[in-house]
Amino acid sequence: SRARVAILTVSDTAAADTSLDESGPTIRETLAGAGYECKYLLVVPDDELRIRHTVQTWADQRDVDWIVTTGGTGFGGRDRTPEAIRPLIDREAPGLVHLMIAASLQKTPLAALARPVAGTVKDTLVVTLPGSVKAVRENLEALLGGGVVDHALQLVKGASSRMLHSDV
Amino acid sequence: SRARVAILTVSDTAAADTSLDESGPTIRETLAGAGYECKYLLVVPDDELRIRHTVQTWADQRDVDWIVTTGGTGFGGRDRTPEAIRPLIDREAPGLVHLMIAASLQKTPLAALARPVAGTVKDTLVVTLPGSVKAVRENLEALLGGGVVDHALQLVKGASSRMLHSDV
Amino acid sequence: SRARVAILTVSDTAAADTSLDESGPTIRETLAGAGYECKYLLVVPDDELRIRHTVQTWADQRDVDWIVTTGGTGFGGRDRTPEAIRPLIDREAPGLVHLMIAASLQKTPLAALARPVAGTVKDTLVVTLPGSVKAVRENLEALLGGGVVDHALQLVKGASSRMLHSDV
Ligand code: NA
Repeated sequence: SRARVAILTVSDTAAADTSLDESGPTIRETLAGAGYECKYLLVVPDDELRIRHTVQTWADQRDVDWIVTTGGTGFGGRDRTPEAIRPLIDREAPGLVHLMIAASLQKTPLAALARPVAGTVKDTLVVTLPGSVKAVRENLEALLGGGVVDHALQLVKGASSRMLHSDV
Repeated sequence: SRARVAILTVSDTAAADTSLDESGPTIRETLAGAGYECKYLLVVPDDELRIRHTVQTWADQRDVDWIVTTGGTGFGGRDRTPEAIRPLIDREAPGLVHLMIAASLQKTPLAALARPVAGTVKDTLVVTLPGSVKAVRENLEALLGGGVVDHALQLVKGASSRMLHSDV
Repeated sequence: SRARVAILTVSDTAAADTSLDESGPTIRETLAGAGYECKYLLVVPDDELRIRHTVQTWADQRDVDWIVTTGGTGFGGRDRTPEAIRPLIDREAPGLVHLMIAASLQKTPLAALARPVAGTVKDTLVVTLPGSVKAVRENLEALLGGGVVDHALQLVKGASSRMLHSDV
């Protein structure tokens, strides 16, 4: 069965007027095109507790396999998405962080301003993407390429690591 | 004198039948060939407390310079080697983590599924390798290449950083 | 207005005789040449509490935008600059860490021995560089290239992320 995704756009601007959210719909369309079932798309302001509560609630519900956030990962004073999510992370995934940063750095050195977090919260994979549409596209391309997230989700859901992952 | 190594294979399967452990012996042979003295090779199941206790005991004994683990670093439900070891780490080594992930990503994007930890526990260097023989070989090649681990071990053991490390 | 920098050299040797400090002056000259205002250059020994107290004091004073340290990031027994600073970090910056390590690894695999930390302490960016003049130059080139630190500082100071950062 298809993997189920929840998308969280973090942006004061988009929270005031959701028609301004371009990055959330970009994720939804990209992932739908890649065969994922997008169950939720929510917009919250850059509020650390709101972000944390939303991710925690989705992980507790156990009805999505992957939570993707966009926005709030930079150096602006309100950018606290990583700080909102890190305390929830049970198992950190530095390889996914490396993959995203390395892919983005091939486009621009300013990708070094990203502060992504990735890992599992209960049985759910959580990955934070930057806020811009361009960066969202680049990061998703890296995460979907070569089946990286597909493999991660199958392993999280209980498939045999030996079976899926024998060449890694 | 030669650096002393302890090898820990983390695998439910290999713990039930140690003849199935291929990665531990691969590490032993590779490191013996590189001039290291392999003092211990132990197999434990994917049990967080067993892993942590073994690494802590070896570090407390102070008779090995480098602890290398294999297995339990992925996304499977039982994969908790990084979580077992991270609380023991006194000084994290993000450069070694970067080196391993970057080297493996040159072979396959699925290397992004690795969740390695590296650093010192007391005066002992600890590095977690993935479970597969192929990934073990790639990671060791990266760690031994250019004398990276050799330098790290000499510095941990008290050699002058200025002497060894003047060009870094 | 120009960004203001505080430079902290961490070295037992240089603290005993500040005329031996080459890395601090290298940072000062490089950053002055790049248009930064270098307000402080201080030398402390490899003492975890002295390092932490200095960085905390500078961040509390709010009269510098960027704190750059050099030294104490390796594997020597006295190398504890990252451990001194990490507890102060409010928002970690793995992208800057990645950028520095990746840039240095292009020169030598021994760059994997670096254990950098980067992030914000209150409204101040903090980055730890290695101790050698050569590594300082390489890391600063990576951080200044493409305006990476310029952008980070403007964002920390409150510029609109959307305005500055729209292509990241
Ligand atoms: Na946690």
